[in-house]
Amino acid sequence: MMIIMRSNATDKQIEDVVRTVQANGLRAHLSRGIERTVIGAIGDGRPVDKDQFMYLSGVDRIVPISRPFKLASREFSPPDSVFPIDGMKIGGDKIVIIAGPCSVESRQQIIETAHAVREAGAHALRGGAFKPRTSPYSFQGMGEDGLALLAEARQATGLPIVTELMSQEQLPLVLQVADVMQVGARNMQNYSLLHAIGSSQHPVLLKRGMSATMEELLMSAEYILSHDNQRVILCERGIRTFETATRNTTDINAIPVLKSLTHLPVILDPSHSIGNWEFVTAIARAGVAAGADGLIIEVHPNQAEALSDGGQSLKPERFAELVTQVRLIAEAVGRSVAPALPQLSQAAIS
Amino acid sequence: MMIIMRSNATDKQIEDVVRTVQANGLRAHLSRGIERTVIGAIGDGRPVDKDQFMYLSGVDRIVPISRPFKLASREFSPPDSVFPIDGMKIGGDKIVIIAGPCSVESRQQIIETAHAVREAGAHALRGGAFKPRTSPYSFQGMGEDGLALLAEARQATGLPIVTELMSQEQLPLVLQVADVMQVGARNMQNYSLLHAIGSSQHPVLLKRGMSATMEELLMSAEYILSHDNQRVILCERGIRTFETATRNTTDINAIPVLKSLTHLPVILDPSHSIGNWEFVTAIARAGVAAGADGLIIEVHPNQAEALSDGGQSLKPERFAELVTQVRLIAEAVGRSVAPALPQLSQAAIS
Amino acid sequence: MMIIMRSNATDKQIEDVVRTVQANGLRAHLSRGIERTVIGAIGDGRPVDKDQFMYLSGVDRIVPISRPFKLASREFSPPDSVFPIDGMKIGGDKIVIIAGPCSVESRQQIIETAHAVREAGAHALRGGAFKPRTSPYSFQGMGEDGLALLAEARQATGLPIVTELMSQEQLPLVLQVADVMQVGARNMQNYSLLHAIGSSQHPVLLKRGMSATMEELLMSAEYILSHDNQRVILCERGIRTFETATRNTTDINAIPVLKSLTHLPVILDPSHSIGNWEFVTAIARAGVAAGADGLIIEVHPNQAEALSDGGQSLKPERFAELVTQVRLIAEAVGRSVAPALPQLSQAAIS
Amino acid sequence: MMIIMRSNATDKQIEDVVRTVQANGLRAHLSRGIERTVIGAIGDGRPVDKDQFMYLSGVDRIVPISRPFKLASREFSPPDSVFPIDGMKIGGDKIVIIAGPCSVESRQQIIETAHAVREAGAHALRGGAFKPRTSPYSFQGMGEDGLALLAEARQATGLPIVTELMSQEQLPLVLQVADVMQVGARNMQNYSLLHAIGSSQHPVLLKRGMSATMEELLMSAEYILSHDNQRVILCERGIRTFETATRNTTDINAIPVLKSLTHLPVILDPSHSIGNWEFVTAIARAGVAAGADGLIIEVHPNQAEALSDGGQSLKPERFAELVTQVRLIAEAVGRSVAPALPQLSQAAIS
Repeated sequence: MMIIMRSNATDKQIEDVVRTVQANGLRAHLSRGIERTVIGAIGDGRPVDKDQFMYLSGVDRIVPISRPFKLASREFSPPDSVFPIDGMKIGGDKIVIIAGPCSVESRQQIIETAHAVREAGAHALRGGAFKPRTSPYSFQGMGEDGLALLAEARQATGLPIVTELMSQEQLPLVLQVADVMQVGARNMQNYSLLHAIGSSQHPVLLKRGMSATMEELLMSAEYILSHDNQRVILCERGIRTFETATRNTTDINAIPVLKSLTHLPVILDPSHSIGNWEFVTAIARAGVAAGADGLIIEVHPNQAEALSDGGQSLKPERFAELVTQVRLIAEAVGRSVAPALPQLSQAAIS
Repeated sequence: MMIIMRSNATDKQIEDVVRTVQANGLRAHLSRGIERTVIGAIGDGRPVDKDQFMYLSGVDRIVPISRPFKLASREFSPPDSVFPIDGMKIGGDKIVIIAGPCSVESRQQIIETAHAVREAGAHALRGGAFKPRTSPYSFQGMGEDGLALLAEARQATGLPIVTELMSQEQLPLVLQVADVMQVGARNMQNYSLLHAIGSSQHPVLLKRGMSATMEELLMSAEYILSHDNQRVILCERGIRTFETATRNTTDINAIPVLKSLTHLPVILDPSHSIGNWEFVTAIARAGVAAGADGLIIEVHPNQAEALSDGGQSLKPERFAELVTQVRLIAEAVGRSVAPALPQLSQAAIS
Repeated sequence: MMIIMRSNATDKQIEDVVRTVQANGLRAHLSRGIERTVIGAIGDGRPVDKDQFMYLSGVDRIVPISRPFKLASREFSPPDSVFPIDGMKIGGDKIVIIAGPCSVESRQQIIETAHAVREAGAHALRGGAFKPRTSPYSFQGMGEDGLALLAEARQATGLPIVTELMSQEQLPLVLQVADVMQVGARNMQNYSLLHAIGSSQHPVLLKRGMSATMEELLMSAEYILSHDNQRVILCERGIRTFETATRNTTDINAIPVLKSLTHLPVILDPSHSIGNWEFVTAIARAGVAAGADGLIIEVHPNQAEALSDGGQSLKPERFAELVTQVRLIAEAVGRSVAPALPQLSQAAIS
Repeated sequence: MMIIMRSNATDKQIEDVVRTVQANGLRAHLSRGIERTVIGAIGDGRPVDKDQFMYLSGVDRIVPISRPFKLASREFSPPDSVFPIDGMKIGGDKIVIIAGPCSVESRQQIIETAHAVREAGAHALRGGAFKPRTSPYSFQGMGEDGLALLAEARQATGLPIVTELMSQEQLPLVLQVADVMQVGARNMQNYSLLHAIGSSQHPVLLKRGMSATMEELLMSAEYILSHDNQRVILCERGIRTFETATRNTTDINAIPVLKSLTHLPVILDPSHSIGNWEFVTAIARAGVAAGADGLIIEVHPNQAEALSDGGQSLKPERFAELVTQVRLIAEAVGRSVAPALPQLSQAAIS
């Protein structure tokens, strides 16, 4: 941590800061410039709370030197984290595609979609049983019944299930069905939930909050990792900006920058990050071109009846086209999309 | 809801949209302009999910007409909501001041601060026992022990207690001590928590999320109100922008705009919204000048030792000066700060 | 400037950085922490371009220590700058109010408004002859004819004129009429214009760009000050955020923070910063409560016919009410609104 | 334009709005809902200023129906605009790459870079002679001497020149050298400059302002198009958000969305939009994968000495690698990078 003094700081003020630094078990290291003095507070690598120094007389600013995350950092663990989730392996050369409806709405809808996305080449099925909705008057998800339908869809197709968890109470139920538990953007800093998920030792897909910095996303991952739960997938899903032509702004920069900061796999959700089905395929291509380890895509067999986020869902045939295009991009960057699951026998489908 | 068709929409597409509108139990009303056709979908005032229409061929955009919140709206309930919380009455002419440390840190700290802010004119004591911190390595609050100290502080000073609730599990504990439960910015869209708080029938201070729109804040209030829990206080606490000179950007516009949109009381947290104690008093004055019904201020007896957010805390003597200045502003806008609590006997203090 | 090395930087890389620092005429000062090395580059206070160091192998980040502005800084010139503009004195205890229509539209409109705002207590008349409009199809201002009408309004009322300059070509014309030349938000970083204005030695009202940081605003002021043109007034006019309920977000924090960073006067434009006349008075009060040295307010005698920005203009009678309220706030913060100009004789008015 | 009345608007207020609509030569069309009345104002497609209606009593909001840009719109001119600039053809299937240093710094630097980027496959040379710099103390470009060096570089390599114009005064000079005149982000709404450039009938590369919406970018293009200057290239260069880990946030969504809104070519500047050379190639790939018609890349032979933006410049060999990677992506999306210029004879190079 560097403590930058005001240009008119007195010697007395500088001494007081030095003393406080030392009282915190840190070494103080002075640089006297023409205009200002800077005091380096050098420790043993453990995080120090900068707020303790901000109040001191004569202090202008505090600049942290160490990154606040450790376990999530590339420096802590240089190679890419790769881990299997059911049959699907995430974080390596093979790009993984998760697809399905925003919400589980009916038995027919989820089973039909599961078969359709499986056939198009998806490796996992997404679908929300518990839905965080801005309005209390919007459909809030099928809850426990939705989870049962997801279990049935897994049974029918063999696809691992990615589904959202909104609170600790739902954990026992969701754990029975989810192969990956999703933490939504609105809960990225719900620390009680992060602690619970960390303890569960279950794989997690952690979405970036809508105005979270990359560092904050990594700090939220750190909460989970600090419980020694290593299977955390980070997901860029668009951030909030002044632009109104799109639902969110896809922070494509986050893909390569996060990959450089952390060893964890990074995937992109182009459906939420642009919010309009017409452009989802273009953004999915961009994500893989930028280095994403996977994609999570909204697919709905009948958008006209979708109870949530219909406007950003792809029909199954468009999703199949997206997979085809993404395969070409993956190859262009020296990777490949993970192989599609083997075809089911006719008996299994019907 | 107005459905704006693309300029090249065909008659067939327009008819399809009209049919879908009618199939949703709404009346369709066409305006054919030179360039585009607009279809009004007219209902009985119940919210309609616009996503159902966004996918239809030929549709360009959907414009909602009704506001998505009802119970929170000024139109639903024109007069200002005024409600008592313990001795303190909030939402009327009298401006209420809540003050205290970011976190409860020790018996001495909280009792001493409680007396100091009471004496300076505060009407309630704030202090966090459960603290949402960006880093898992930062102090997370004293938890249950902190709640016990808050109870003691109330006992000693008579000040009602405002304290944060981070999850449903903490609800029974927090309910025993809190006169007002605070929902922090990071949990503004933690809908499980909002439902639980709504059911509790307990007063709530709901902070705006760091990138939430005013409409989203009101929708989160609507979650609580929909449980017929009427005692919701809204709190502006700064939003996230590109500016780096301050911790957040105080959205001072939100004060008069929220007051026009809703009947609920609106208060300002100048400590978090600017993040530097030197400027807290100026922003507190601005908030009251703009029409805020109250303030929530961080005060710490000894900033040098504050375990969280020290840099934005005022010392008690500066807080007293803030109250003096705010009183003058309140009078300048034809209001007044609620009267200070009567002095305690010496016996009570020691 | 502090150069923060990566945690895995080699000794060779550190030596190379030190050599480059020295080759730039700076002293290098090493702090070796457990995780990282930080190299202070200490100079004589002249700005150094940090880009020269960013590319070097092993460098993680550069942290500037000195502020990039000098002449504008409070440290360079501690007392408040106060300067007279025609009769009006700006930057001292007395708060100055500039008012008038967005655009000059007709002789009657501008003369009538000038008399109305003068009578209500304004100290200067604003009005645009050259208008930056988002659309080439919108009214672009009356140009030279508009300037002539402004000159006439000054003649009739004695009010100094504040009017916008959009390009260097307009400078000779605008100089003949303007007492203060306004640089609009869209031109805050039009450096050719800033150089020209600097050279003119004429007073300037410099508006903050819609997504400019405070530091960038001060750097733009520095362009003007570097021509030894000292009469620069800074103006907060709202910044662009994700919020859509208001035209812009008034950055009220900028008032006290700018006042601490610079000796230049800081005023607020509540009309643009909230964009809705209903709320302009509340935000004007907030600005003065936060420490603004003045206000610039849109007033239009007949909003129904306003050719630009009608929705945020006040009618003269509402403006008079604003002045009354602002006077009370000014007194509450120990200042006062500058005295109104003496009444004109009836002969002068007609 | 739809005029949405407040829920408590009176019949009288509704009638007044209708009368005003008609007085503006528009037809009024009423939709009475349960809660609110909406008045459609239907015209002949010419833009109408909505501000005239915002002030009227009882009006809640105005929703524009027509897009404010015409000549730039895809609806006005459905096929992609393709136009030749010197040898280079832009806007069609072939992707164009513009490369070179941020600033022209010396004869050797620009000639050497020109040869290097030509050999690596670039189709045009960028280089600034006039540089908009945040600080008046930073290098402001070589000016006229820099233009002469650019002319020499074109002579030597045959590469068309893209160079920035900061003000109308520079136009005659820049026209002599530039094949494409660049309007920088800070000047996107410098309307005097846009008018001058429109009149010049010269090709333009128009960069998006750092907080401009896509619609505003198109409105600025409209300024140029309204002078019947058709050769406008739009450039996404990153927008300003709260994220601090990168210089800007690349708005990758803007690529496909702009392509759907306009017929004009859309290119990406990955160097400015992420601001760190390490990630430029990843973002360049993403841009082409998302549908960009070209790229503009910063290349500097010796970053250590770069006088501006060194940290985001690629060395020539890394740029050559970028071109190779982008070629693969172009093919993966069914396009190709425009062919490299034929090799120069050795005589020509030396």
